[in-house]
Amino acid sequence: MREAGVTGADLELTADGQRLRFPAVWLRDNCPCTECQDPGSGQKLNGINDIPNGLAITLTEDAGESVAVTFAPDGHRSAFSRSWLAGHALDGYADGDGRTEDDKELWPAADLANVPQVSWPRYLDRPTDRIRALADVLLRRGFVLLRDVPAEPGMVLEVAASFGFVRETNYGRLFDVRVEPEPGNLAFTSRAILPHTDNPYRDPAPTVQLLHCLRTAVKGDGPAGTGGGSPPCAEKVGGGGDTGLVDGFAAAAALRATDAESFDTLARTPVPFGYIDKETELRASLPLIQLSPRGRVRGVRFNNRSARPLRLPYAEVTAFYAAYRRWAELLARPERQLNLRLAPGDCLVFDNTRVLHARTAFGVTTGSPGRHLQGCYADLDGLASTLAVLSRSGNHGRKENS
Amino acid sequence: MREAGVTGADLELTADGQRLRFPAVWLRDNCPCTECQDPGSGQKLNGINDIPNGLAITLTEDAGESVAVTFAPDGHRSAFSRSWLAGHALDGYADGDGRTEDDKELWPAADLANVPQVSWPRYLDRPTDRIRALADVLLRRGFVLLRDVPAEPGMVLEVAASFGFVRETNYGRLFDVRVEPEPGNLAFTSRAILPHTDNPYRDPAPTVQLLHCLRTAVKGDGPAGTGGGSPPCAEKVGGGGDTGLVDGFAAAAALRATDAESFDTLARTPVPFGYIDKETELRASLPLIQLSPRGRVRGVRFNNRSARPLRLPYAEVTAFYAAYRRWAELLARPERQLNLRLAPGDCLVFDNTRVLHARTAFGVTTGSPGRHLQGCYADLDGLASTLAVLSRSGNHGRKENS
Repeated sequence: MREAGVTGADLELTADGQRLRFPAVWLRDNCPCTECQDPGSGQKLNGINDIPNGLAITLTEDAGESVAVTFAPDGHRSAFSRSWLAGHALDGYADGDGRTEDDKELWPAADLANVPQVSWPRYLDRPTDRIRALADVLLRRGFVLLRDVPAEPGMVLEVAASFGFVRETNYGRLFDVRVEPEPGNLAFTSRAILPHTDNPYRDPAPTVQLLHCLRTAVKGDGPAGTGGGSPPCAEKVGGGGDTGLVDGFAAAAALRATDAESFDTLARTPVPFGYIDKETELRASLPLIQLSPRGRVRGVRFNNRSARPLRLPYAEVTAFYAAYRRWAELLARPERQLNLRLAPGDCLVFDNTRVLHARTAFGVTTGSPGRHLQGCYADLDGLASTLAVLSRSGNHGRKENS
Repeated sequence: MREAGVTGADLELTADGQRLRFPAVWLRDNCPCTECQDPGSGQKLNGINDIPNGLAITLTEDAGESVAVTFAPDGHRSAFSRSWLAGHALDGYADGDGRTEDDKELWPAADLANVPQVSWPRYLDRPTDRIRALADVLLRRGFVLLRDVPAEPGMVLEVAASFGFVRETNYGRLFDVRVEPEPGNLAFTSRAILPHTDNPYRDPAPTVQLLHCLRTAVKGDGPAGTGGGSPPCAEKVGGGGDTGLVDGFAAAAALRATDAESFDTLARTPVPFGYIDKETELRASLPLIQLSPRGRVRGVRFNNRSARPLRLPYAEVTAFYAAYRRWAELLARPERQLNLRLAPGDCLVFDNTRVLHARTAFGVTTGSPGRHLQGCYADLDGLASTLAVLSRSGNHGRKENS
């Protein structure tokens, strides 16, 4: 870094050949002094209206690793470390919380030769394995397969608690995915389920889903899985109930590249979803593709079962259905779907804002116990927090002063 | 209703002098027959791509209370009740799940002579009182004051469980709002807190907040409340710790009416929020005003304490700060703030996507027990579900077949 200069309304300096420029109001709003920020919590002590209007910089003092700035009209003085300023350069920045397509590794299934997986005992024992597993769900592929989780009821809650907080819903803190005599949801039958996200009829919908396999559908129980390719985690072939995963962000990017009009239609049309049973009546109306303020893909919702009657202006209905059909065709392409067979002890953890999941039909034999998964929901924000804390070097409290 | 007609791609009929028109694909996607919808769950059995492309209506049969439609190319036949069709008319429809400003009763504080309130024993005993209380939170004013909730630790969780599911966070299933020796958040001090929404550093942020008063700051403890007006629920004046509420949707509508450019800037600029302590590192970046796909106000986020350094393109920073200042000034106007003093046993339940809350500073006397609230979070979707089920006439299972 070289010398700092005064330009009245801005602070300008050069770091590593890069010119940095910060408006006075931005600097003042981020002043780290103890009048402006609580030293304990790092929280701001002032509202924006406690800062004088029409701020200007009257003096800039260069003090090696830091820069001190004096403001008019009130003479307040703020000191910033140069490295902090360089780390908060204003330009070239997108949405900023790791939740859009820009921070993901998008995958068409064919590229995913190896399913990201971590053994549960190693996940528990080794922070590096835990970081890798959580980063896979959050930032890279949108899912991870935890192996060797004891195939015992309730363990899925322990997995969720290892990185976040369980989101309780009308299905309970955990739910059993198996054939029920009077299913309130087709998930609790032996039917095939098309690629979908869960709970689109909730707002906020749960952002993380876990599915833990206690028992597979065994060979001889019924139809074999229809998913293409060789299930990488199969222990037995036949019986059905294979799991399919689709990267909704990769699919959305592909739709935008080939049919921008359909993409725009899906991003701006609220689609109603609903779920109704004796104790529950949920309803939410949001687009199938959700964009960040900068227009980047930040979420997908897709669930044929719980879509409710669209109530659009008449003139928009036909265009919506054309876009919806294109989108559904794209999501259903076999080459986009990663197929795997969960074995007892496997626990799939995935980003429910991004990754669609499906299953093939499976057979049921009277008297045999049948396929049994347990699931629960959690949220990405808690997962990201756990990952950030684990990733702190040395874990010495706060990472930054703002 | 009168006769139905055939127009090839559309069904047209007239009801109560109103012309209704439905595209063939819309009708087919909502066919209620047992091949298309599961009679148990009401869920759709087909994906959009199971419906033939290029659908046309070849025959419309009028059968009194219902209309039967036959489709080309596959000859599928669907019957719809006329009342269902009239109830799902396509035009004149907005976002559709009750979450935007269009479904709210907006209030400047001056109009709210009476704080919406319900006694907890009546809420428990009488469904009509419960419906009124929940509708106030969800649809009308964005908050309700429950009185006579036993001032016992943990009761706030029972209140939350009466309408939904507790959202656990890093603060626990419930949190104590009182002066702490080493506060990780300024909420846990005796400082004044400006109007804000909670947990803007979460995505999804909790959409309902509860605050249950166990003990007030007593007179003689310290500074009196600075909020204007006469607190309607005050039992003692003095001591401070008064609660203020601001309708963020009403304020956003006022901003749009007077300064559309600032409104647009706030709606499209992602603002980073964060919270950091030893075990937690949360971060979310979303606009201060969130719009529905139709451009209607659907949420506000505002919290000076946890705002983190903006990282915008340089050219946008100054305009953002001008809009941010206007918005903060508008939210801080005394006439927009409803002031009340929670008494022991009062439990405030409010929509955290809409209503900002604040408190005045309060005093602490060594050796005296001091102000103590307990809070927890829940979500609007579960609250809406509870309200919908309670509102069913006779509560005979499902309300509609789609």
